[in-house]
Amino acid sequence: MYFKISKKEFYSALSTVSRAISANSPLPLLSGIKIDVKEDEICLTGSDADISIKKTLKKSAEMILDIKDTGSVVIEARNILELVRKIDADEIEVETIDGTLTKFSWHTAEFKLNGMNVADYPAIDFSQPEKRFALEADILMKIITQTCFAASDKETRPVLTGVNFKCDGKQLECVATDSYRLARKIVTLETDNEFNITIPAKSLNEVGKSSNEIARAFEKQEKILIAVSDKKAQFWLEDTIIQTRLIDGIYPETNRLIPTDFKHELVVDARDILNAIDRAQFIKSDGISIVKLSANSDEVFISTKSQEVGSSVEKIDTVSYQGEPIEISFSSRYVLGAVRVLGGTVVKISFSGEMKPFIIQNVDDDSILQLVLPVRTYN
Amino acid sequence: MYFKISKKEFYSALSTVSRAISANSPLPLLSGIKIDVKEDEICLTGSDADISIKKTLKKSAEMILDIKDTGSVVIEARNILELVRKIDADEIEVETIDGTLTKFSWHTAEFKLNGMNVADYPAIDFSQPEKRFALEADILMKIITQTCFAASDKETRPVLTGVNFKCDGKQLECVATDSYRLARKIVTLETDNEFNITIPAKSLNEVGKSSNEIARAFEKQEKILIAVSDKKAQFWLEDTIIQTRLIDGIYPETNRLIPTDFKHELVVDARDILNAIDRAQFIKSDGISIVKLSANSDEVFISTKSQEVGSSVEKIDTVSYQGEPIEISFSSRYVLGAVRVLGGTVVKISFSGEMKPFIIQNVDDDSILQLVLPVRTYN
Repeated sequence: MYFKISKKEFYSALSTVSRAISANSPLPLLSGIKIDVKEDEICLTGSDADISIKKTLKKSAEMILDIKDTGSVVIEARNILELVRKIDADEIEVETIDGTLTKFSWHTAEFKLNGMNVADYPAIDFSQPEKRFALEADILMKIITQTCFAASDKETRPVLTGVNFKCDGKQLECVATDSYRLARKIVTLETDNEFNITIPAKSLNEVGKSSNEIARAFEKQEKILIAVSDKKAQFWLEDTIIQTRLIDGIYPETNRLIPTDFKHELVVDARDILNAIDRAQFIKSDGISIVKLSANSDEVFISTKSQEVGSSVEKIDTVSYQGEPIEISFSSRYVLGAVRVLGGTVVKISFSGEMKPFIIQNVDDDSILQLVLPVRTYN
Repeated sequence: MYFKISKKEFYSALSTVSRAISANSPLPLLSGIKIDVKEDEICLTGSDADISIKKTLKKSAEMILDIKDTGSVVIEARNILELVRKIDADEIEVETIDGTLTKFSWHTAEFKLNGMNVADYPAIDFSQPEKRFALEADILMKIITQTCFAASDKETRPVLTGVNFKCDGKQLECVATDSYRLARKIVTLETDNEFNITIPAKSLNEVGKSSNEIARAFEKQEKILIAVSDKKAQFWLEDTIIQTRLIDGIYPETNRLIPTDFKHELVVDARDILNAIDRAQFIKSDGISIVKLSANSDEVFISTKSQEVGSSVEKIDTVSYQGEPIEISFSSRYVLGAVRVLGGTVVKISFSGEMKPFIIQNVDDDSILQLVLPVRTYN
């Protein structure tokens, strides 16, 4: 292979596909980026077997791409990224010169990097599955930021480390839970579909990091195509495909866990409750921060108590409170996480009782619901 | 104790003294900040036994300080910093209410933190030693940034983990070496002095981080007072004293190691040589990056070779080269470190031979000299 390419675009593409590469690759070859030079385009691939990213580069008004010879090679991601990032030339020549030894050259320098044989790189099937739907860029980003954080980070129940995407007709329901809290986002699609798959939260977060591509799709008002089968999910972002395996196993039925009948309702400025809980969360017992919310129609307090550190009481301003007085304790981390991602200025917290799960919603957006389980305390 | 204070200034003072506190304190009490409330001022102290920082707060036009009752307490640094940082009020009240239990209050909240008994806090002697000299703020900063990095980070020869300050008359010589490289800064003082002490590089770096105080001293053109004995050194920055223990042991005589007779002299733009070495340094053998400089009167090259990663050759622009051709190999980290801190746009590298130490200087500042030992290579 032999080509000349714009440094900036080449670096940006290498760094996009390298996001799929894990520091501890299961296969040595997967620590590399696969470069496939075809007649009129270059495909770069990075993968850790769970998630794979493929980017296609073509000649354009913004990018020099002069292909002199086709061919393929795999180069250690760390090395090629480090080199291309620091090259101080607008364009560079890349050429395999002896087997997999690859030369990178520009006006003043020649670097030769040992490559790996592309025949040893695992075959990754990027063919597009038949079930397809499209989402606005900002809706996809909201699904990711509003649900992924609630997935479990423990491998004891693997299915809970993913976000369940369930579609029946035009309604897409995305749910994540670690069994102490739950996030549910409901989106209406333009076309009918039927699937029930669980996508690793880690892979979705990687899609969320494709902020350049997503921002461009948003600017151009282009939707993002998502194609799914019972084995994989693909996200199509311009010239980039992000493909992830799915998590096996049946996702638990969660809708029956969400209460619908409430006895107390607190409406509060998101910033006020975030700041008060955040200020108190360093007061931990056994490394865990539990805060108590005490509400009545006149006043609402956030308080903490720890043998080790001390205690706190803070009054928070409220928009409204309806119902009998309530005292309820919860993990500050769960409520902070839920309120932060709602993205609203005013949130509504609805309680059914002191030991029952409660839900937190953005008063201006009923597509997203956050549920948190309270904690029993003895003081 | 009982006082009212501006939140912003209190937080800034707490965070200054907390810099002396180590995450792994030798004594539990040293994980705390000591607060001493006197009739008309508050002294805050943080220490890890090696380095101690004391800051005195007085009422001023910028700062509310209303002392209602004197007294002392020690409070866990992590907790008080976390709390005061997040308080959203301009002023706060601090009061010990029950033994060492200390209340922090403002309009909407009351936090009570468990304190520790000040009687258990080690006595730290902040009295000023008799040997004193003053340095311009920017000169002190240059001593720190241009020498500390060259000190050893290994405890095998403790004296090399410090910077030697040797004064005989008006000439102050500051030297650091890890025995593979050396940095020497010479400064002329206004008054005569005589001492030979070794200050831990870690402590000097802590002084260097007092950037606010140093920047203000620089603006006001005020000199920084340094007081030393054979046990400790003190740096006086406005209302802050940074005090450090010294390192015992005789510092090696280093001046005879510095060559004075050179056969080759390369003058080069600092940025050009930095970029070329930086680009090549990912090409490592056994985790170490060695580069070779090959110079003759026409051309200068930086090259590398590694069985594992690959190889590189890059031509660098030079201002001038005098002498016979030379090929010399060295650790890229050492030369990068030396060139970076010289702070000049053009550097001069003087060689005596391929296996002899070479020196790197800023052509516009002969007060600082960097020496590097070459490395023997076999390819």
